[in-house]
Amino acid sequence: MQQVQTKIYFDNASTTKVNEEVLSSYKKLLDEHFANSESLYDSGTIIRDMIEKSRKSIASFFGVSSDCVIFTSGASESNNLAIKGVCFNNLKKKHIITSSIEHSSVFNTIMQLKETFEYDVTVLDVDNNGAISLDDLKNSLKDDTVLVSIMAVNNEVGSINPINEIADIVKKYSRAFLHVDMVQALGKVDINLKNIDLASFSAHKIEGLKGSGVLIKKQHVKLKPLICAGQQEFGLRGGTSNALVNILFYKTLRLYFQNKNDLHIENLNKLLINELKKIPEIKINSPSNSVKNIVNFSCDGIFSEIMLNALNKNGIMVSAQSTCSSKSGNPSHVLKAMGFDDLRSNSCIRVSFSRFNTEDEIYYFISTLKEIIKKYGSL
Amino acid sequence: MQQVQTKIYFDNASTTKVNEEVLSSYKKLLDEHFANSESLYDSGTIIRDMIEKSRKSIASFFGVSSDCVIFTSGASESNNLAIKGVCFNNLKKKHIITSSIEHSSVFNTIMQLKETFEYDVTVLDVDNNGAISLDDLKNSLKDDTVLVSIMAVNNEVGSINPINEIADIVKKYSRAFLHVDMVQALGKVDINLKNIDLASFSAHKIEGLKGSGVLIKKQHVKLKPLICAGQQEFGLRGGTSNALVNILFYKTLRLYFQNKNDLHIENLNKLLINELKKIPEIKINSPSNSVKNIVNFSCDGIFSEIMLNALNKNGIMVSAQSTCSSKSGNPSHVLKAMGFDDLRSNSCIRVSFSRFNTEDEIYYFISTLKEIIKKYGSL
Repeated sequence: MQQVQTKIYFDNASTTKVNEEVLSSYKKLLDEHFANSESLYDSGTIIRDMIEKSRKSIASFFGVSSDCVIFTSGASESNNLAIKGVCFNNLKKKHIITSSIEHSSVFNTIMQLKETFEYDVTVLDVDNNGAISLDDLKNSLKDDTVLVSIMAVNNEVGSINPINEIADIVKKYSRAFLHVDMVQALGKVDINLKNIDLASFSAHKIEGLKGSGVLIKKQHVKLKPLICAGQQEFGLRGGTSNALVNILFYKTLRLYFQNKNDLHIENLNKLLINELKKIPEIKINSPSNSVKNIVNFSCDGIFSEIMLNALNKNGIMVSAQSTCSSKSGNPSHVLKAMGFDDLRSNSCIRVSFSRFNTEDEIYYFISTLKEIIKKYGSL
Repeated sequence: MQQVQTKIYFDNASTTKVNEEVLSSYKKLLDEHFANSESLYDSGTIIRDMIEKSRKSIASFFGVSSDCVIFTSGASESNNLAIKGVCFNNLKKKHIITSSIEHSSVFNTIMQLKETFEYDVTVLDVDNNGAISLDDLKNSLKDDTVLVSIMAVNNEVGSINPINEIADIVKKYSRAFLHVDMVQALGKVDINLKNIDLASFSAHKIEGLKGSGVLIKKQHVKLKPLICAGQQEFGLRGGTSNALVNILFYKTLRLYFQNKNDLHIENLNKLLINELKKIPEIKINSPSNSVKNIVNFSCDGIFSEIMLNALNKNGIMVSAQSTCSSKSGNPSHVLKAMGFDDLRSNSCIRVSFSRFNTEDEIYYFISTLKEIIKKYGSL
């Protein structure tokens, strides 16, 4: 096996390189501004005005009003705020519906409500395309369903839920609120917030800064704050504003949409899948209709950890499961939910592209993969 | 009144200018590292190792073990995590003790528990030195007291609570956990975490970055996470780590203690108080034994907002109440709790120093103050 200095970053669903323009703006802001954005003197109001400009642009981007945009420290906080915020504001209704393939920041939050506050939780199964059944959803709605939380795009396999239809059903057949984790959907599928009450977004998945998230909360939704404190974020998210990252959230969003190259990603996807299909030991786990930036596959007889290490030694960075659960040692809950056995769920690899990846990187990846299979597959 | 370009920053209890070394390290880290710190490949483990090195040094600084240091997005999150985390893990005990002068991130969190989950809350009064009574505390402890949360140093007037004695009483007479908001205490008074179960800290109050906090949680304390998600922070704080600010927390702490100049602050304090005492319209609100970096006073007949604006026009940045409540329009709850009337509580000004302030700034401040009093005092 050749020893190379190659560095191939195929883990863009975990986090992305910060956009150069965002980064240089951030450094400039860091040099020029440190005041507390809630201060009443000029240095404070200048920062506050920039935050509100960013908030207004984000609102306009999503077709909502400014008071629907809440800045958070990231999408995990957004998810927790949405779920606990709605539930704790409607304590008489104790039923929640979610799915078996949610990110841990949704699933574990709902499980905490179940274990600590005796919520009744329905976990919807997914089919082998990694999507819930609309009939199941409809049949699960009850009078005391307070919240439905379903992700738009799955982070491990890239499967897509029919969010518009889900929203229609929730609104037609219940009075529940609908929360959608849109972290992996932003910039990858069309987003329409009609009939969606709450939606979570992250900056660092779209070439932005870490510690930066947004929760879109429609005006009719009342929340209890997760982080209680002062007047910040309409009283819904206290604590000194992380002003500069909030200011840059809109720039991040704008530049991501300006620079993204769907055709390029689609070509990379096609090439990778074609090449993977030629390798007999490989089974593709991502459904054919998934987002094009994520390709999940398993390799017969080579556990994820072995494969990750071998790829890492060759300068290739990929993931197995969600990075947030990278050390669990358990088979992927997403693959299990899609009906794959333990062995396959324990040997999955997720490749996730950005606009910076190239066809050459895929060829190098494939040849490395073949060498690893030759070496470890026979052990 | 002279028109000046002077910029005097006297609002360091609200936030501080970032230390130049911290800032330049941050920019370097931003250029070099973007990987998710939970990733299993080299770029991830390098970042994870730096976080753990920072965690270990912070732990050693506070005399605790590494698994007692939880990184958060700021002290408001630390306070919420400590309070809700302990309460939700001990749901059978429903009594909380706090004080009337806590920061909103403690007080409003406890009020949320009272209103939403029917907690029984004892709010201890403070004396005119802004400190609670140890007897009151002792008498308030009950069998079902789950938590006592008392701040070490008040953010508005700088008053100091006898935290060591408070800790001894809580441990001697109850099985309650003790949480201490130490945001304004760090670097200003000696900190001894003996008998303290949980303590909150912020980076941006000690020349660090915003969006960066720590909760110290002793090993015997079990918490429910506030932000549920993955394996990060021992499972107690999910979400992709804001790795670079966590890495820099220790450097911030080390440099702050290395650079701070208590004698200089004490001299500024003496000078300001001496000069303020010469102005008949001024009444000092900070108790004589308060921390030296905070001086709170009221000016007869000039409401805080008028004074803040007039000072701002002269390039002087100060606060009235907590910046987190800067737009409330209510009289300061801290001054009211210390026994001052509405008028005095509505006309308070907080000056808070850093090592960068000078005696000349104080003379300019005093002369400006006199001119403002001449202009507005007679209206």
